Amino acid sequence: MINFQFYSPTEIVFGKDSELGVAHLLKKHGATKVLFHYGGGSIKGSGLYDRVIKTLDDENIAYLELGGVVPNPRASLVREGIKIVKENNIDFILAVGGGSVMDSAKAIAVGAKYEGDFWDLYDGTKITAALPLGVIVTIPASGSEASNSSVITNDDLGLKRGTNSDFIRPKFAIMNPELTYTLPNYHAFAGVVDMMSHIFERYLTNTPDVELTDLMQESVLVAIMDNAKRLLKDPYDYNARAHIMWAGTIAHNGVLGVGRTTDWASHGLEHELSALYDVSHGAGLAVIFPHYMLYIIDHDVDRFYRLAVNVMKVRPNKNDKRGVAIKGIRKLQEFYKSLGMPLTFEDIGAKKEDIPKLVEQLNINKGDTFGGFVKLTMDDARKIYESC
Amino acid sequence: MINFQFYSPTEIVFGKDSELGVAHLLKKHGATKVLFHYGGGSIKGSGLYDRVIKTLDDENIAYLELGGVVPNPRASLVREGIKIVKENNIDFILAVGGGSVMDSAKAIAVGAKYEGDFWDLYDGTKITAALPLGVIVTIPASGSEASNSSVITNDDLGLKRGTNSDFIRPKFAIMNPELTYTLPNYHAFAGVVDMMSHIFERYLTNTPDVELTDLMQESVLVAIMDNAKRLLKDPYDYNARAHIMWAGTIAHNGVLGVGRTTDWASHGLEHELSALYDVSHGAGLAVIFPHYMLYIIDHDVDRFYRLAVNVMKVRPNKNDKRGVAIKGIRKLQEFYKSLGMPLTFEDIGAKKEDIPKLVEQLNINKGDTFGGFVKLTMDDARKIYESC
Repeated sequence: MINFQFYSPTEIVFGKDSELGVAHLLKKHGATKVLFHYGGGSIKGSGLYDRVIKTLDDENIAYLELGGVVPNPRASLVREGIKIVKENNIDFILAVGGGSVMDSAKAIAVGAKYEGDFWDLYDGTKITAALPLGVIVTIPASGSEASNSSVITNDDLGLKRGTNSDFIRPKFAIMNPELTYTLPNYHAFAGVVDMMSHIFERYLTNTPDVELTDLMQESVLVAIMDNAKRLLKDPYDYNARAHIMWAGTIAHNGVLGVGRTTDWASHGLEHELSALYDVSHGAGLAVIFPHYMLYIIDHDVDRFYRLAVNVMKVRPNKNDKRGVAIKGIRKLQEFYKSLGMPLTFEDIGAKKEDIPKLVEQLNINKGDTFGGFVKLTMDDARKIYESC
Repeated sequence: MINFQFYSPTEIVFGKDSELGVAHLLKKHGATKVLFHYGGGSIKGSGLYDRVIKTLDDENIAYLELGGVVPNPRASLVREGIKIVKENNIDFILAVGGGSVMDSAKAIAVGAKYEGDFWDLYDGTKITAALPLGVIVTIPASGSEASNSSVITNDDLGLKRGTNSDFIRPKFAIMNPELTYTLPNYHAFAGVVDMMSHIFERYLTNTPDVELTDLMQESVLVAIMDNAKRLLKDPYDYNARAHIMWAGTIAHNGVLGVGRTTDWASHGLEHELSALYDVSHGAGLAVIFPHYMLYIIDHDVDRFYRLAVNVMKVRPNKNDKRGVAIKGIRKLQEFYKSLGMPLTFEDIGAKKEDIPKLVEQLNINKGDTFGGFVKLTMDDARKIYESC
């Protein structure tokens, strides 16, 4: 086990009607003037928008609004939010939505405390301050509600970049599984792929002797898959929704990745896909991750063998570990397919002739490598994209 | 799954040499004058005391000392600490030791912000403020480093009482597994029983449909047992020490108990044992918990069956679930015995004739019940003690 720091201070309020406590939490965390940040019409259609506005009004909490966040949230809207915050002395950001809204809110929170253009903070400049933010989660997927990360797409440059900082961990996260009942299946299951991928990125480690986190990761993966299958049958299954929602938080708040190196090669490869084709991040990961696993399987057959046996429930056979490992990855693809997720470039309309552009945008200097599990070159990236 | 709040803000710094960062963490959390609280000679013998003092001196952090915490920490020393803090404008408590030292520090932290006698706060009065505290953990067991709980023994009254409050969650916890190398086996393995019991208290639930936390609990239990077996063979096995140490935190920081009712009957029953006989809490739990499980097995045979199969690795047999469940509890006792832990009243020198006194001190009003899993009466308590 390697040395680690673990810090996950977000106060989670989870369950039915939990959104009714938003004013209490805002006051507890000292909010006096709030930017209410959200996406499109879904929270208006569901009535959540009205409930939040009513609570803020009833409790006399001043606020301004900024809607319009889209999947793969845009730098241009972030800049608009930063301008509103700076011009109106806003001291707290309330994000209501999924990962895109939360990530956009995080970008506004750090940009509001930064003199230059916020994009610097997604391009290598260290974050040293942020406005506090809180979230009401409507899409379980990104784990952004308790994570230290945010990913923004620069619409001018056609680039997608992430940043990490403890300053952007939300102060509170309100999570009501009932708010996810109306989520279209495609979004719900792209979320499932996203959270499973957050665990895979931590599962693929070169650190020996990490049984505790291995076993915990495997349990969360099993629970996610079991409950996703329940959702396929009944989208109004409260406990299945609750399991998926909480698993999304656990998958990315850090607790499953302590004491071990992690990977993140697939997230890098996928970001360029969703930047170029505007495919949902989870759907892109359903394409990339299994192909990536097959490409690097010989780096550590034992690891993919235990994934196959412990998570994908392939029958153990120590005389053919590689075969079992491959069966596990194929079963993962079948599972994704059963959820209606894409498996290939063709399924998402990605084109072979775009591969050079995808590789170029990965922004890897010639001779450099990426990925924490296997050191991948640009040539590897090309081959993995081609295998998709 | 039931509604829950989850809040675990403690910053964990885990690994080799992590104690060297104590001054940095104290400054980060605004400490200007510190009470350095510890137990007996063990941190002096190990050199940890000198290293902490040197770091505080080097970094010009003012401090006063209060040593002398004993297992089942005493209210009298807590009062002494509160007096020192109040008279010297101390603004931060640094606890260096195991659960007793941490719990004593928590009591000082709340008492320092309370007008009356601190014992009120362990006797029903709600905690509304506390001095900040940080810890360097030397005994993995109590999970107090990231928990909201503290247990103190009132030496005048011969009572042991606990309290819970988010105000007493440490700001930081420094955890270096190497600091546990010199722990005598008895203390190390009493710690193992304690952390396993923290999971059992959450495992015994009446909430249906909690697969995610069930699976996570089972994984942590398996990892604890596997690594305890390694420690029996080699007390200097760093990774085994690290696994046990981190499992102790996870077992009690709340993440394994979200969304489900919990039990805590065994902790109640044990507290009176260690108050009366001054037996270590973990050793007392090794006696109480399996006997308690056997006593209430018919409340939910399925739960004890899955514990037997998934954790104790008893061969499944759905035609004799009760038999398998009992085998699982017997295997747990064998495991505790292999660690040198006591299994019966006789093993800890407890006397049958004291049982009425133990039952009386449980402080259950006639007709009331205790325990979240099964509603136990005073008569049940007597029978469970008798079965030990």
